[in-house]
Amino acid sequence: MKLLIVGGVAGGASAAARARRLSEDAEIVLFERGPDVSFANCGLPYYVSGEIAERKKLLVTTPEMLRNRFKLDVRTRSSVETIDRAAKKVHVRDLATGREYEESYDTLILAPGAAPFRPPIPGIDLPGIFTLRNLQDIDLIKGQVDHGVKQAVLLGGGFINLELAENLVRRGVATTVVEKNGQILTPFDREMTTPIVEHLATKGVTLLLSQTAESIEKTADGLVVYLKSGERLPAQLVVVGVGVRPENKLAVGAGLAVGPRGGIQVNEYLQTSDPSIFAVGDAVEVTDFVILEQTQVPLAGPANRQGRIAADNVFDRKAKYRGTQGTAILGFFDRTVAMTGASEKSLSRAKRPYRKVYIHPMHHAGYYPGAEQMSLKVIFHPETGKLLGAQGVGGAGVDKRIDVLAVAIQAGMTVFDLEEMELAYAPQYGSAKDPINMAGFVASGLVRGDHPQTDVDSILATEPGQRPFLVDVRTAQEFSLGNIPGAVNIPVDELRSRLGELPRDRPIAAYCQVGQRGYIATRILLQAGFTVSNVGGGYKTYRLFFPKDAKQ
Amino acid sequence: MKLLIVGGVAGGASAAARARRLSEDAEIVLFERGPDVSFANCGLPYYVSGEIAERKKLLVTTPEMLRNRFKLDVRTRSSVETIDRAAKKVHVRDLATGREYEESYDTLILAPGAAPFRPPIPGIDLPGIFTLRNLQDIDLIKGQVDHGVKQAVLLGGGFINLELAENLVRRGVATTVVEKNGQILTPFDREMTTPIVEHLATKGVTLLLSQTAESIEKTADGLVVYLKSGERLPAQLVVVGVGVRPENKLAVGAGLAVGPRGGIQVNEYLQTSDPSIFAVGDAVEVTDFVILEQTQVPLAGPANRQGRIAADNVFDRKAKYRGTQGTAILGFFDRTVAMTGASEKSLSRAKRPYRKVYIHPMHHAGYYPGAEQMSLKVIFHPETGKLLGAQGVGGAGVDKRIDVLAVAIQAGMTVFDLEEMELAYAPQYGSAKDPINMAGFVASGLVRGDHPQTDVDSILATEPGQRPFLVDVRTAQEFSLGNIPGAVNIPVDELRSRLGELPRDRPIAAYCQVGQRGYIATRILLQAGFTVSNVGGGYKTYRLFFPKDAKQ
Repeated sequence: MKLLIVGGVAGGASAAARARRLSEDAEIVLFERGPDVSFANCGLPYYVSGEIAERKKLLVTTPEMLRNRFKLDVRTRSSVETIDRAAKKVHVRDLATGREYEESYDTLILAPGAAPFRPPIPGIDLPGIFTLRNLQDIDLIKGQVDHGVKQAVLLGGGFINLELAENLVRRGVATTVVEKNGQILTPFDREMTTPIVEHLATKGVTLLLSQTAESIEKTADGLVVYLKSGERLPAQLVVVGVGVRPENKLAVGAGLAVGPRGGIQVNEYLQTSDPSIFAVGDAVEVTDFVILEQTQVPLAGPANRQGRIAADNVFDRKAKYRGTQGTAILGFFDRTVAMTGASEKSLSRAKRPYRKVYIHPMHHAGYYPGAEQMSLKVIFHPETGKLLGAQGVGGAGVDKRIDVLAVAIQAGMTVFDLEEMELAYAPQYGSAKDPINMAGFVASGLVRGDHPQTDVDSILATEPGQRPFLVDVRTAQEFSLGNIPGAVNIPVDELRSRLGELPRDRPIAAYCQVGQRGYIATRILLQAGFTVSNVGGGYKTYRLFFPKDAKQ
Repeated sequence: MKLLIVGGVAGGASAAARARRLSEDAEIVLFERGPDVSFANCGLPYYVSGEIAERKKLLVTTPEMLRNRFKLDVRTRSSVETIDRAAKKVHVRDLATGREYEESYDTLILAPGAAPFRPPIPGIDLPGIFTLRNLQDIDLIKGQVDHGVKQAVLLGGGFINLELAENLVRRGVATTVVEKNGQILTPFDREMTTPIVEHLATKGVTLLLSQTAESIEKTADGLVVYLKSGERLPAQLVVVGVGVRPENKLAVGAGLAVGPRGGIQVNEYLQTSDPSIFAVGDAVEVTDFVILEQTQVPLAGPANRQGRIAADNVFDRKAKYRGTQGTAILGFFDRTVAMTGASEKSLSRAKRPYRKVYIHPMHHAGYYPGAEQMSLKVIFHPETGKLLGAQGVGGAGVDKRIDVLAVAIQAGMTVFDLEEMELAYAPQYGSAKDPINMAGFVASGLVRGDHPQTDVDSILATEPGQRPFLVDVRTAQEFSLGNIPGAVNIPVDELRSRLGELPRDRPIAAYCQVGQRGYIATRILLQAGFTVSNVGGGYKTYRLFFPKDAKQ
């Protein structure tokens, strides 16, 4: 068996190492266009601030190590230019020497990755404008910062640019993020990004939403980015992070099938339209595990697993890729936002039925010092309760809950299973009723019909005259500090004795701070014959949709 | 419906609140023998050091709150003495006034909890000797410490006493833990407690394993604990934490069925042998979710969920309790040890087949600062790969992995599912190949037969002459810093060229530091025709069984 692998980072390197473990005899050649193999893509932004101080830490492995340990023929700075599928040969160019040659294969694995997209605006190729994909890019960005950058403009409010923003702020650089959509981190539902937007402001990052760069010009002391709005942003560093495009040139040139977004099409065995050619990683189209449609999700974890699976299939160990859930996480200073599975947006786009709940629990027992509040959104099928997606934002413990929910989605579990989860509890780690259990209680009550809920976003999307009668069941003091416009205040503990103040001819929506007292109020009013629902997640959820500074 | 609930802490309070949400009309009386309802049992030790500074934080709720919000008839300091099942009445004594009275019921829920066991040794009832169950106990213990305690002896090396040890050390108290078994934290397998044993020593706690107290005597300045070994431990504070016994007196007196360990027997609806009487919490016998035998597991999480389920059943909403997994966690300073599901010990006792793997991964990407190493043990069915149990010990991130594995066990997942898990990865939170994926890779390789493994404990249990040929595939430097006795050193990267040094007539066991290079070595040697296995988890696992200071 002669196996050629194109691309030596996450998917390619995983495939190569797995292939060698499966076969000591196979001839395995790993081609990588850059000088490095298997570097830590996800760590690159942290090198700018020195948070990761040593550059060599970013090298997960070296060509030498792959040669010695895995007996791999590693060829860096080698570009595979074309594939001759009929002759089963590739045409290679050695970028160091210029030498061109052919290499035959029995099987080929493509792991070329995805390239940052540069929008075609005037000035986009000026010096001082970078994209961030590899070590060479971060060397250039860090070099620019070391050389003295006062102002930076980051085009795009995605994961990498927000990580970069943190590290630029740590270096004292005045940083502006320009995002063309109305929210940052577009895989998330907008309201779940609100705490990160607020934290960006706290840390001094300027965020311009719904704005785009029109052109970039060189000035005496750097660059200036002109926005469509007319605003002018001077900068000595511009980083373009507005998404990536699959590196499909080789595949397209060879006549392999690619999807509408450019991703190389593969079957569940990660085999392309040519059975001798597999493809993995950011360059391929994958099945969305929840929605079951084709999509593209550039993530390191899936790329690594795909590399392993492709190698298994090359050596006739039938292995299926189960699809991608899109589990993703961002740390921004001490804040975390994470998601798994489908979002409301993706379910709406796919026209799938769903319901959602919000809870705002402490990450561990409130009585133990250091408890941090998080917001957790769980999305599920309205009738079966099957879990479809989850998003969390807060500080400590968000990653844990999203991982737990990621496994639950993988297992096909329902909101009823969340009620029953037996998670580790001591006061430093969780609560006797963990946030996951709480989400299960709330969502199960909704599916069972015990706990009618109304979404705050749907209330606010209704004409004021058509809205339910809003009763705020918090204390008078809480009410006075901020409330949903139009609400009347009857504290839950007084509710039973003040039923006469509530309308019997109109739906009532009760809310509290996070949803728990609202639930109790709902149960009391339901049993007293009112038409009532709880506003899911209470005032805290309202504030995710309508932050304090925003217009209502 | 008139519902009486006996016991107002975790299970009882949960049942009462749930009952009220299900029925506004029911008459609900909650009897609690102590002065408090629903206090934070699991937080009590942290009050001694002031880590939890305010006593009122330990009160999760108050009788007043339960009265106002849930319209409950809460009767604290009220002891339910007997049950007249025929007449459906209980006999109650008001401990404050001495008044005795009867109260009728339609349904009764028993949630009396479990009481600390005091071994019947001479002197056990002397002043200065405490058990720890409730706020009154911790007031006494804290009072004693505030009054000046130089030395404390904790009888029993279980969860509560180790938490107490941390808080006594924080107060500057010289603390000795006396444990009759050969290990602390007996639900765990012994080797997984090794890092905690080492950390106890680091923090100055004296641990005496396999020792028991024979008697306790009063001295001029306090107490002295005499051990069976003859050792004499002076102390001004002794806390007895050698296990709990179900509070079954009321149930036994009423003729309800109890199990061999004294737990009240209930069916899956948490109904006792009398259909009008339910029982929940530490007083009941539960089904072990993995082993499917009856057991007793005093844990707050299950108690809370049982309370909720019992209330559901009282109001004819059929709800089943799925059994207890025994998910448990201990924090000791910055160390964490956690488990879920079956242990090797419990599987051996129940004569169930299993295999195990050990891995020692970093809790997040090694290239990002602050990565902490953990040890993770995963136990599974040898043929199907079905997950049976897991244990983890380390620092940050242990709780997350055990929670993920707890859900996987709940879902009936296998080690193959672990390979495919898509968990949240950014360098602060995990790795592209998460510890969970790694455990899946190792265990799946074992079940599939690709990755023959030998357990280090079984090698060491074999006569030296019968052991496999041990090859240490780490570097010469690693080898020189400590190795398994009898091993020869051939670094993995030299293995292919030094095959001649290995025996073909004898099984070989390869090991490295954590198992990964040992696995690569095993694959190389297997394919070269050797009979070889990898020593699971490598030298690091060996050190869990044989710590540096221990005899080999």
